[in-house]
Amino acid sequence: MKFSNFFIPTLKESSSDVKMRSHDLMIRSGMIRQETSGIYSWMPLGFRVLKKIIDKIEFLHDEKGINQILMPTIQSSDIWRISNRYDTYGKEMLRIIDRNNKDLLYGPTNEEMITAIGKQYIKSYKNLPRRFYHIQTKFRDEIRPRYGVMRAREFLMKDAYSFDIDEVNGENTYCDFFKLYLKIFSQLGIPVIPVRAPSGEIGGNLSHEFHLVVRTGESEIFLDSKLLDQSCENFELDQILSLNSYTDDYFKEIENKKNLEKFKSIELGHIFLFGTKYSSSFNFNVDSENGKFMPFMGSYGIGISRIPAAVIELSNDNDGIIWPKAISPFSVHLINLNVDDTECSEFCEKFYKEIKSRDIDILYDDRNERPGKKFSDADLIGIPLQVICGNSFKKCRELSILKRSNKDQIDIGVGKAIKKIIEMIGWNE
Amino acid sequence: MKFSNFFIPTLKESSSDVKMRSHDLMIRSGMIRQETSGIYSWMPLGFRVLKKIIDKIEFLHDEKGINQILMPTIQSSDIWRISNRYDTYGKEMLRIIDRNNKDLLYGPTNEEMITAIGKQYIKSYKNLPRRFYHIQTKFRDEIRPRYGVMRAREFLMKDAYSFDIDEVNGENTYCDFFKLYLKIFSQLGIPVIPVRAPSGEIGGNLSHEFHLVVRTGESEIFLDSKLLDQSCENFELDQILSLNSYTDDYFKEIENKKNLEKFKSIELGHIFLFGTKYSSSFNFNVDSENGKFMPFMGSYGIGISRIPAAVIELSNDNDGIIWPKAISPFSVHLINLNVDDTECSEFCEKFYKEIKSRDIDILYDDRNERPGKKFSDADLIGIPLQVICGNSFKKCRELSILKRSNKDQIDIGVGKAIKKIIEMIGWNE
Repeated sequence: MKFSNFFIPTLKESSSDVKMRSHDLMIRSGMIRQETSGIYSWMPLGFRVLKKIIDKIEFLHDEKGINQILMPTIQSSDIWRISNRYDTYGKEMLRIIDRNNKDLLYGPTNEEMITAIGKQYIKSYKNLPRRFYHIQTKFRDEIRPRYGVMRAREFLMKDAYSFDIDEVNGENTYCDFFKLYLKIFSQLGIPVIPVRAPSGEIGGNLSHEFHLVVRTGESEIFLDSKLLDQSCENFELDQILSLNSYTDDYFKEIENKKNLEKFKSIELGHIFLFGTKYSSSFNFNVDSENGKFMPFMGSYGIGISRIPAAVIELSNDNDGIIWPKAISPFSVHLINLNVDDTECSEFCEKFYKEIKSRDIDILYDDRNERPGKKFSDADLIGIPLQVICGNSFKKCRELSILKRSNKDQIDIGVGKAIKKIIEMIGWNE
Repeated sequence: MKFSNFFIPTLKESSSDVKMRSHDLMIRSGMIRQETSGIYSWMPLGFRVLKKIIDKIEFLHDEKGINQILMPTIQSSDIWRISNRYDTYGKEMLRIIDRNNKDLLYGPTNEEMITAIGKQYIKSYKNLPRRFYHIQTKFRDEIRPRYGVMRAREFLMKDAYSFDIDEVNGENTYCDFFKLYLKIFSQLGIPVIPVRAPSGEIGGNLSHEFHLVVRTGESEIFLDSKLLDQSCENFELDQILSLNSYTDDYFKEIENKKNLEKFKSIELGHIFLFGTKYSSSFNFNVDSENGKFMPFMGSYGIGISRIPAAVIELSNDNDGIIWPKAISPFSVHLINLNVDDTECSEFCEKFYKEIKSRDIDILYDDRNERPGKKFSDADLIGIPLQVICGNSFKKCRELSILKRSNKDQIDIGVGKAIKKIIEMIGWNE
C-alpha cells in the first residue's frame, strides 16, 4: 500500500480531554475518529488492525467446526421479557421504539436470541451438540464512555454460544472454548491471564475472564504471580477450576487469599457456562430416548474492538505505538527520503513491488514530505520494521533497517536487503 | 464441511404468509430466520453466501485502491441537522434517545458522517482525491417490511464515498465506480442493467441504479431491450450519460419514450454524484493554490444482503435454489447414501478430504438420513454439482455426478471422478 493512497491522518497534538495513552495514540495515528460520545469510526489504518484480528478469530473458530452466523443488531423486547432481563438490564440497554410503537432494543448480547433460534430448530438430542458464533456490533449505553474504543458504547464483539445434552458435555465444551481462547490470544501475540469470575447477570455458575495485565488497566485482578509465567493452553477442566486467579468481585467471596497479589488489567474475553438458565425460561425442550430435557448452554465473548487499544496500552514508547507482528497493520514500512530523486524513487517502487510479490504486507511512504515528518509518522504508526532509503542509498547503495521495538538499526547493501527483511519478519521475540 | 456439523435446518413446508419465491426458499433451506418484523438472522448456510459476496466486493474495491473503513451504526442527530435531513428524512429513520436524552439515530446511510470526517482531516487539495468504502449494517424503518431480506428493515450495505477537487474529476470517479459495479456484478454471476435514476433525497444531478431484470421484481424499469444483450463494462462517461434505460421515476420525466419497454426488476446498486451538496452544508472548504474550494462528492451503494434473494428469484426451479457458482455456498455436494456401510463411508471420507485438499469447497452429507431426504435437501440447497455415492458404488465402483441446473447426470468410475469434477467446476455456463 502506498502512503499517498492510504488515508492516515496523523495528528501532532494530543487532545487535552484524552486520558489514556492508547486512546491518544489511536487518535493521533489516525486509526479512529470519535463521531459522538462513545461512538467511533475506524479509519483505514485502524480498520486494517481490526480486520487482522477478525480474520484470526474466524480462522480459529472455523477450524474448531464452530458455525458462523450473523444475528441482527436490533432485537425485539419480547425475547428479553421471556428471560426477565428486559426490566432488570438497566439503563445500559439502548431501548428503541419503532414507527409502529413496538419496543425494540440494540442488542448488548445475544443469549435470548440464540435460545429462540435453538428452540425453533433443535428438536432432538440427535441435533446436539451445536456451537455457533457471530461477529456483530453491540451497544451498551455506558454512563461514562471513556478511553476511546476501550470503553465505547458501540463496539464490535465476537460472541459464541453452545448447546449440549447435559452438564458433563457442557463442561467439556466450556473447556474447549477456554483452550480456544488461550490459543486465539496467543496467536494474536497477547499474553492474557484467565481469571475466575462470578457469572453476574448472564447467570449460571461457571465463568472466566481473560485479562491482559497492564499497569494502566481499569480492572483489578488477584492472582498467584507464578501464573504470569505459565502457559495454560493444555489445561484440563480440573486445572481450570483450580486456577488461583480471580476478578475483584470473585476475590471478595473467597476465603483463602494467600499468595494472591493485585494487578491492574484489561478484560478482553469472558466465558460463561450458564446451563439451563435460558433454555428453561424459553421452555426449550428437546426429545431424547428417555423423554424430554433442556439443553445445557454456554456463551463465549471476545471484545474485538477493545483489543487494539489494550495491545497499544501494553506496547508503546514516547514516540508511538509498537505493534506486535501478529496484528500490525503492515509488516514493513518502506520510507523513501528522496522522492524527488528519480533513482531513489525508481528503486523504491521496484523494491516495494518485490516485497509485495512475496505476500509481505508493506506500507510505502512515497509522500512528498520532509524526512522528520516521515520518521515521526513511522514511529507513531508503529510498524515493526522500518526500511529507510536515504543518503546511504545515493552514496553506497545501502538501506537502513530499523526495528521499531528497540530502534536497533543495521545498514545493508540493497542486494541483501530482501533476504534480511524476510529473516527479520520471522524473528522470535 | 460435513453436513452433520454444519447446521442447515431445512423445512419441508412453506409458511403461508411468505409471498415471494426467494423468501420461501431462503427460509426453507435454513439460510435465514426472521427474528422480528423485517429483521433476520443469517444462519450458517446463508452467512456463507453473504461472506462470498462480501469477500468479492472487498477484493475488487481494494484492487481499485479504495480505502476500507468502518463507520458506526449509531449516529448523532447533530450532523443530520446540518444537512437538514433530520427533519425531512421521515419515518424510515429509526430515531433513538439515549440515557442522557441525546437524539441519536440508526444510520440509514452515511453521507453526513463521511462529510464530517472529510472536513476534519482534508485541509488541502493535495489530500485529494480520496475514496472510502465500508460494509456496515443499516436500518430503515420500512412501513411494510416484506419478502424476507429483499425488503428488510435491518440490512447489510456496502457504501462508498468519494471526494474530488472539481466536477470533471468527480465525473471520472463516478465513471470508475460505474465500471467497478459492472465488474463486481459480473464476477458475482449477476447480469445487471444500469439505469438512469433521479437523485432524490441524496441530492445532486447524476445517478444510476443497477437492476436485475426478473419477472417477480418489485421495481419497474424502462429500457431499449437491446441493452439486455450488451456489456457496458467498457463504457466511457458519454456512453453512460446516453444510456437508453430509466427507473420508473425518471421515465416519467423524459420526452422521447420510443423503443422503451417495461421490465420488472430488483434494484441491487445505486450510485450518486451529488457534487458539493454536503460539502456546502458542512462548510467543508479546502485550500488550493487559487484559494478555497468545496470538494466534489459522490456515494456508491450495493445492497449486499438483498443479493442472495435476488439471485434466487432469478435462478430456481420447483425443487429449490440453483446457485450460480460464484456465490454458491459450496461448489460440490457429496451425498453418501449408505452411511451404515463401512466401505461407502470410508470411501466418502477419503474422497471428501481429497476434494478439500484441492481447495474446492465441499459439503459432505454424512447424515444418517433416508436417500429421499438427502436428495430433496440437496436440490433445495442448490449447490451446482451433486456427487452421489450409492448402489453403483457397491456394484461397480461408480459415482453419479449431477448438475443441479439441468439435472444432467453422468456415471463415472471412482478413479476418474475427481478429474471430471474439476473440469466441470470450471464449466462455462
